[in-house]
Amino acid sequence: MKLGRVVGNVVATRKDDRLIGHKLLIVRLLSPKGDGDLGPSVKGENFMVAVDMVGAGIGEDVIVCSGSSAAKSSGVPDAPIDGAIVGIVDSADVDPREVG
Amino acid sequence: MKLGRVVGNVVATRKDDRLIGHKLLIVRLLSPKGDGDLGPSVKGENFMVAVDMVGAGIGEDVIVCSGSSAAKSSGVPDAPIDGAIVGIVDSADVDPREVG
Amino acid sequence: MKLGRVVGNVVATRKDDRLIGHKLLIVRLLSPKGDGDLGPSVKGENFMVAVDMVGAGIGEDVIVCSGSSAAKSSGVPDAPIDGAIVGIVDSADVDPREVG
Amino acid sequence: MKLGRVVGNVVATRKDDRLIGHKLLIVRLLSPKGDGDLGPSVKGENFMVAVDMVGAGIGEDVIVCSGSSAAKSSGVPDAPIDGAIVGIVDSADVDPREVG
Amino acid sequence: MKLGRVVGNVVATRKDDRLIGHKLLIVRLLSPKGDGDLGPSVKGENFMVAVDMVGAGIGEDVIVCSGSSAAKSSGVPDAPIDGAIVGIVDSADVDPREVG
Repeated sequence: MKLGRVVGNVVATRKDDRLIGHKLLIVRLLSPKGDGDLGPSVKGENFMVAVDMVGAGIGEDVIVCSGSSAAKSSGVPDAPIDGAIVGIVDSADVDPREVG
Repeated sequence: MKLGRVVGNVVATRKDDRLIGHKLLIVRLLSPKGDGDLGPSVKGENFMVAVDMVGAGIGEDVIVCSGSSAAKSSGVPDAPIDGAIVGIVDSADVDPREVG
Repeated sequence: MKLGRVVGNVVATRKDDRLIGHKLLIVRLLSPKGDGDLGPSVKGENFMVAVDMVGAGIGEDVIVCSGSSAAKSSGVPDAPIDGAIVGIVDSADVDPREVG
Repeated sequence: MKLGRVVGNVVATRKDDRLIGHKLLIVRLLSPKGDGDLGPSVKGENFMVAVDMVGAGIGEDVIVCSGSSAAKSSGVPDAPIDGAIVGIVDSADVDPREVG
Repeated sequence: MKLGRVVGNVVATRKDDRLIGHKLLIVRLLSPKGDGDLGPSVKGENFMVAVDMVGAGIGEDVIVCSGSSAAKSSGVPDAPIDGAIVGIVDSADVDPREVG
């Protein structure tokens, strides 16, 4: 899974029926900085759209699951989903010597 | 899922039978810029070919699903598909402080 | 799916039995240049090996499908395949303003 | 699979029920350096969150499996998992001439 | 699939039971250079760990399959595997004009 922050949302009236009822949130993938916070990856910006499974809000740090695992976890058979928010981060502590 | 813009289409007469009848659109993957619009990712151009599931047109911003989830959502058993357009973006709002 | 060009082939006598009988072609992944042609991605060279499902030849521009969708489309149960050529490009037209 | 080092952990009280009981560890993906040790990849930092399947601890070098294979190996049906630690490295020896 | 060279191996006594009995080899992913040989990709080093399905040895150029296709081809149900060596390269010939 990846760490990221909810930074916005997508509204799409015309979409696959199996996405109806799902909140589509924009997550910016981030890296742990070693001080307990998350920050931009040195590899440049990386955004994804994920269905929200746990009631995440804008500004919250989250755990995102990608690929067919995300589709299966949504509970919707054959869902056109490859990204899901599956946890809201309380803490993401990393050994500072292991960053950079 | 990813955000992108439909920028063209592919014509392929000789193709897997299970792709027949599917519109094959070229999508340029883009990042939210914080002003409601989408723009090129700092990581360089990134194009993909996706089957169109929602009637998207050239120039429209879309949501694309990748991998086996895309194949399953196409409804075609064992489809040789790993990219599908599953939504047309009305708005993709991102907190401007979270971009850059 | 991705766009690319068949640039060579791989011969491998010692291989998984389920690959026997499949042509293993080397595809260079390319990006649409806006003039109807395909060209190298700014992100550097990117080659893959794909089984040929549609009779593609060296020098032909093709559509490649990746991941488990490629395995399933090969018709070989549990095939050790994660890349398949599923179409031969007649045209890949992109709005020139959307490139660069 | 990839090689990496356990560098921290994630606490997430609000998460998908199917993650409850799983240790969520932060792994920094690393490359073999040719001297028996692992070091940062030249391509920049790369962190992932993985469920721990083998009792790995902070500072240990590990093997991580990604994608739906990770979900299936967790034993949890339809688990929202796309990363799992599946081995703890005793040694990762690489021919020094093959590095750099 | 990808082309690469076996450059080392991983010993991991504490690992998922379903990996027991599998040789875990370190493969450096490489690109065809147009002279029949393989060389480092311009995008920087890229190593993976793969189970050996065809008896490959250190220094041999190989074909690797990634993702759930690799797991399925291992024959081990729900195997925590996302990389497998599925062929040993006799030749990987690429049109020199298509490289660079």
